[in-house]
Amino acid sequence: MLKRRNDIPHAPATALWNPASVAVIGASDNPNKVGGRAIHYMQRYGYEGRILPVNPQRAEVQGLPCFASLAQLPEVPEAAIIAMAGDAAADAVRVCADMGIATAIVMASGFAETGAQGRALQDDLVRHASASGMRIVGPNAQGIANFASGAVLNFSTMFMEAEPMDGPIAIVSQSGAASVMPYVLLRERGLGVRYLAATGNDADLGVSELALSVATDESIRLILVYVESLSQPAMLAEAARIARKRGARVVLLKGGSSALGAAAAASHTGALAGQDAALDAFLERHGILRARDVHELVNAAALFERGFPVREGRTVVMSHSGAVGVLCADAAERVGLPLASLSDATVASLAQILPGFATAGNPLDLTASLLGNGAMFSKVLDALGRDPQADMFAIGVPVAGPGYDVPDLARTAAHFMASHRKPLVVTAPQRSVRAEFEACGVPTYISETDAIHALWQYAHSDRMHCAAASSLSPEETIVPHGLLDEAASLSLLQRYGVPVVEHAVCANADEAAVIAQTMGEQVVVKGCAAEIPHKSEHGLVHIGVSDARGAAEDCLARLNSLGVREPRVVVARMARGLHEFMLGVTVDPVLGPIVVIGEGGTLVEVRGDVASLLAPFTVDDALAAIRRLRIAPLINGYRGQPPLDADALAKAAVALGHFAMAHRTSLVSVDMNPVMVMARGDGVVVVDAVVQFKEQA
Amino acid sequence: MLKRRNDIPHAPATALWNPASVAVIGASDNPNKVGGRAIHYMQRYGYEGRILPVNPQRAEVQGLPCFASLAQLPEVPEAAIIAMAGDAAADAVRVCADMGIATAIVMASGFAETGAQGRALQDDLVRHASASGMRIVGPNAQGIANFASGAVLNFSTMFMEAEPMDGPIAIVSQSGAASVMPYVLLRERGLGVRYLAATGNDADLGVSELALSVATDESIRLILVYVESLSQPAMLAEAARIARKRGARVVLLKGGSSALGAAAAASHTGALAGQDAALDAFLERHGILRARDVHELVNAAALFERGFPVREGRTVVMSHSGAVGVLCADAAERVGLPLASLSDATVASLAQILPGFATAGNPLDLTASLLGNGAMFSKVLDALGRDPQADMFAIGVPVAGPGYDVPDLARTAAHFMASHRKPLVVTAPQRSVRAEFEACGVPTYISETDAIHALWQYAHSDRMHCAAASSLSPEETIVPHGLLDEAASLSLLQRYGVPVVEHAVCANADEAAVIAQTMGEQVVVKGCAAEIPHKSEHGLVHIGVSDARGAAEDCLARLNSLGVREPRVVVARMARGLHEFMLGVTVDPVLGPIVVIGEGGTLVEVRGDVASLLAPFTVDDALAAIRRLRIAPLINGYRGQPPLDADALAKAAVALGHFAMAHRTSLVSVDMNPVMVMARGDGVVVVDAVVQFKEQA
Repeated sequence: MLKRRNDIPHAPATALWNPASVAVIGASDNPNKVGGRAIHYMQRYGYEGRILPVNPQRAEVQGLPCFASLAQLPEVPEAAIIAMAGDAAADAVRVCADMGIATAIVMASGFAETGAQGRALQDDLVRHASASGMRIVGPNAQGIANFASGAVLNFSTMFMEAEPMDGPIAIVSQSGAASVMPYVLLRERGLGVRYLAATGNDADLGVSELALSVATDESIRLILVYVESLSQPAMLAEAARIARKRGARVVLLKGGSSALGAAAAASHTGALAGQDAALDAFLERHGILRARDVHELVNAAALFERGFPVREGRTVVMSHSGAVGVLCADAAERVGLPLASLSDATVASLAQILPGFATAGNPLDLTASLLGNGAMFSKVLDALGRDPQADMFAIGVPVAGPGYDVPDLARTAAHFMASHRKPLVVTAPQRSVRAEFEACGVPTYISETDAIHALWQYAHSDRMHCAAASSLSPEETIVPHGLLDEAASLSLLQRYGVPVVEHAVCANADEAAVIAQTMGEQVVVKGCAAEIPHKSEHGLVHIGVSDARGAAEDCLARLNSLGVREPRVVVARMARGLHEFMLGVTVDPVLGPIVVIGEGGTLVEVRGDVASLLAPFTVDDALAAIRRLRIAPLINGYRGQPPLDADALAKAAVALGHFAMAHRTSLVSVDMNPVMVMARGDGVVVVDAVVQFKEQA
Repeated sequence: MLKRRNDIPHAPATALWNPASVAVIGASDNPNKVGGRAIHYMQRYGYEGRILPVNPQRAEVQGLPCFASLAQLPEVPEAAIIAMAGDAAADAVRVCADMGIATAIVMASGFAETGAQGRALQDDLVRHASASGMRIVGPNAQGIANFASGAVLNFSTMFMEAEPMDGPIAIVSQSGAASVMPYVLLRERGLGVRYLAATGNDADLGVSELALSVATDESIRLILVYVESLSQPAMLAEAARIARKRGARVVLLKGGSSALGAAAAASHTGALAGQDAALDAFLERHGILRARDVHELVNAAALFERGFPVREGRTVVMSHSGAVGVLCADAAERVGLPLASLSDATVASLAQILPGFATAGNPLDLTASLLGNGAMFSKVLDALGRDPQADMFAIGVPVAGPGYDVPDLARTAAHFMASHRKPLVVTAPQRSVRAEFEACGVPTYISETDAIHALWQYAHSDRMHCAAASSLSPEETIVPHGLLDEAASLSLLQRYGVPVVEHAVCANADEAAVIAQTMGEQVVVKGCAAEIPHKSEHGLVHIGVSDARGAAEDCLARLNSLGVREPRVVVARMARGLHEFMLGVTVDPVLGPIVVIGEGGTLVEVRGDVASLLAPFTVDDALAAIRRLRIAPLINGYRGQPPLDADALAKAAVALGHFAMAHRTSLVSVDMNPVMVMARGDGVVVVDAVVQFKEQA
């Protein structure tokens, strides 16, 4: 039987996570076969619904009556496990759909992961199921599990190895291994997991939708997600929004975030990886914390489970070792966790409790003797806990042994957490020391880095803002196609409010000369032809010319010699900014348009000083992105230069985002570089732009 | 008794690490007091020398005859532990020195860590000891320990908690906690430690010298160092050199590497932190690996202990989970560990062993069934082990249970290591799975990231080059002082071979006009006065002028109005490079001159694209540093620009390094910005420089 929790409400009953009955097609008497393991688990872990084994060759399976076929079943089950292989699996899925089963867990492999033929078969099954309203988990799935009810429709061996325990955590993963790795790490730390799903080929009921379904369970405080290719991002965003409303969080790990990893992921799933920066922008926007590996995925779970208020995340570090304080401070600076400045009242209290203390700083260097004196330790903690500037606590216990009353310290720390409701973690390299604190429910870490990182994850996830669910703006119905020339690009962007340089298109040198006169002493003259996007390389850019006619003649001659049919020039006003930025758009196939803001000029790629935003976004979002750039100090005026007009740059980025959203299914990319940024109040001017749309279908 | 190792030679007997006799001054019968614990440890762990307790109030201590005073001892002991506090400790140190004891372990606190008075007392004791040839470990030290001989002159409680075992690892640390934290992490992984030292105030026999002393033990394969303020760097460099000669390595963790951490370190040790980039440059030069925290300090210990050849570090990742392969590939790209390209022969062999395999890639996706078939797994490993392009191996075992013969896998992996002598690690989240591999001597990791990072640390430490021990070049005896003006700075640097712009110093506008004529159509004219280092801010820089006389007059007038007594101008040839770099020098109080190479211009600090080198260094070192810059792609020609003259920039940096070494005790800083870098073959030109020396004493 499962360890049940009485301290959290039971899970809502749903056909998916808690079906009233489960048919197991291809049922086996052997609990170590795919067709036997779920039956074994459901009986072992107290599933209270009806288990209906289906196998024409047996009358009984693991002590349960067995049916010869789906047609023989005494009822239409809510869920079915398809445990057979090959064509039989496909046939069973069709029969299940036709008889009105709500959910099929298709464990069989041999579908999209094997190539085009398998993908066609898979697509056909999903179509067939959808027509009847049946949902499919899989195929090639380890399945789902609900450890609150014992509905373990999953064949992983892990639940033989690490006994389940119900808890406020859900794990939804495309990969089977990546579902049970966080599971066992959590279980070995004594944390309970309620829901677990591994969707394999993720063909129908995918990770995002499963995350959404568990987010509606009020008991769930933490949803851990593993994907290699994200689909249905809006559902994941909605899951995060619902979770955040009650203080719960989503943490996501994407396998294949590097080029090497993406290649590996593509070779085993056939899925195309999206852009990593786009994913970051998406997660940032929806308040979803990103983990780099499985370790980071579960690192702060104990803090999320307890859910004490974060406030500003200002942390007090204390230890009887100065070195531990130093190492925690190093780690805090690396991740950007603020250390608390103790209030004068706290310093005074500490001085009274600890007369030997010269100064009470943070990190707080406790004396070794203190650790043998629980009453005094308790007083110190209380004094710190009352400090309104002390939000979170890290206590380092680098060594124990004679003179250290570790059980008493653990009880004191647990009591502090219960009474002050402030997050507290303990770091200790010794397993035995950690075990004492864990037994009292205090989150523990082996290393200072992990402990500080967990506090940062916990505090940062709280500071992330979750964008309100927004309805999509309408798209333009008539759109250009292919690569636009500079003039067409500029005028299209201008229509959406992007501030572009004053310019005119001229078909001959006379026109150019006339126009130039209206633009001041010096102008810019550029050859204009969509088929020649790299103008500089062909000598088609003349900057700061006073002889516009001559420059235009030169450009037209060069365009002619390049075979351009209708050679034209752009004559533009000279624009000089205090600094050159760039704005761009790329379109992620899953997440949509991403606006990139960065330092401009010819060295954009080399310097790589860019920030990405998921469109659409606000001026504040854009300003925050600009402030993340390395060159951000220029905004406030640097070395005698006046402050830059960051507001105008942010507004231009917002306008670009609206343009991109209005063309989200037709756009390929936008590149505006340089964007001349003037002094505060003087605006920005886009002096060059290339917009590319998809070719006509 | 200690677990002894017969597979590695015994440690050399030295007065320090294996004294023939140890007096314990302030001996206690209670093993849980400072004066009792070392006696307890030495008896418990089989120390074969003579333990001589000293305490006027006891006739016997822990079963040993006790002496009333040092004068009563039957012999002059080789080592003494000073376990008393206060003035008695200081008195005892003096008596020990006078009677000819070789080493005193001063455990008493109350010295430099308490302030100026304590520091004076400490300095006096060290002087007194030095005069008699006695070495002091401490004061405020937990002491030293040799777990090969049982000479545990150390009062940490940790050796009550985690049983010592001899092994090829040494730990030397300024902090007591930071000595036992890596110790217990190693012991809990089953790794043995031979030497451990915690030097506390580090007043005499410091961490660097202790590292050197353990480096001479041929059995030691890994030396772990913790410092908060490095001293005697030459000794640490020599320790690394001696260790590397036989394939052993030094890994260093500096507490206080961040601003927050340095402040914390200063508050508990009073030591001033050096520059972090300088430490990196020092470690890089001497082939010392740097760890960021205690976890990284010990992370690769199991690999270092075995010492299998690294070759090029090309790693094969394999798992029965695609996700684990993906996560390993992600981690490998993050740290820069190369994945192996399997040879055609290996791919063919794998195809024969595994007929079901479509393609054998890397990461290698093993089938789950393979893990139940040890014979086939062994064949796969053998085929990979024979591949000359496969240098190291990471095997992921994300889940076990029925169908997985983990003990057999562990034996197979261990057999592979023994026969192929190639590094291999296993990652497994389950404690029980790791235990099986550890029992067979296979290094294990919980997370993919840690495993890949350990392989990277191991391979990277092998690729680091250790500079040959070099004798210091002589220093200039007559040196300027204070801030030099531009002309003086340029001409001084030029004498050391730094390529500076052609220029002349002129006292009036007529001279400037004459000189300018020899320098081409346009020149640069700048006001020149040491007291005005920020020339641009005062309008003292005229670039590209044809009227040199007018510019000179303007500069001279401005200098006059600024109150400069002898106003002069520098007239310089116009120099335009393809890109602006910078070269600079800072002088670390411990490590000496550090040369900085980076992107130049006014945004140096904002862009922060710099690399540091410990002077002196070679052209190859400088080129490697240049290649580490973000703007490195420019070197090979970028977007139609010709390649840059990186060789000339590297040579200028080397010349600057020689200049800095020749003034290493008098120099404060050098700032050369911009350094115009031309196309390959056309050299570099320094167009501005400020050299600052210390003020005259």
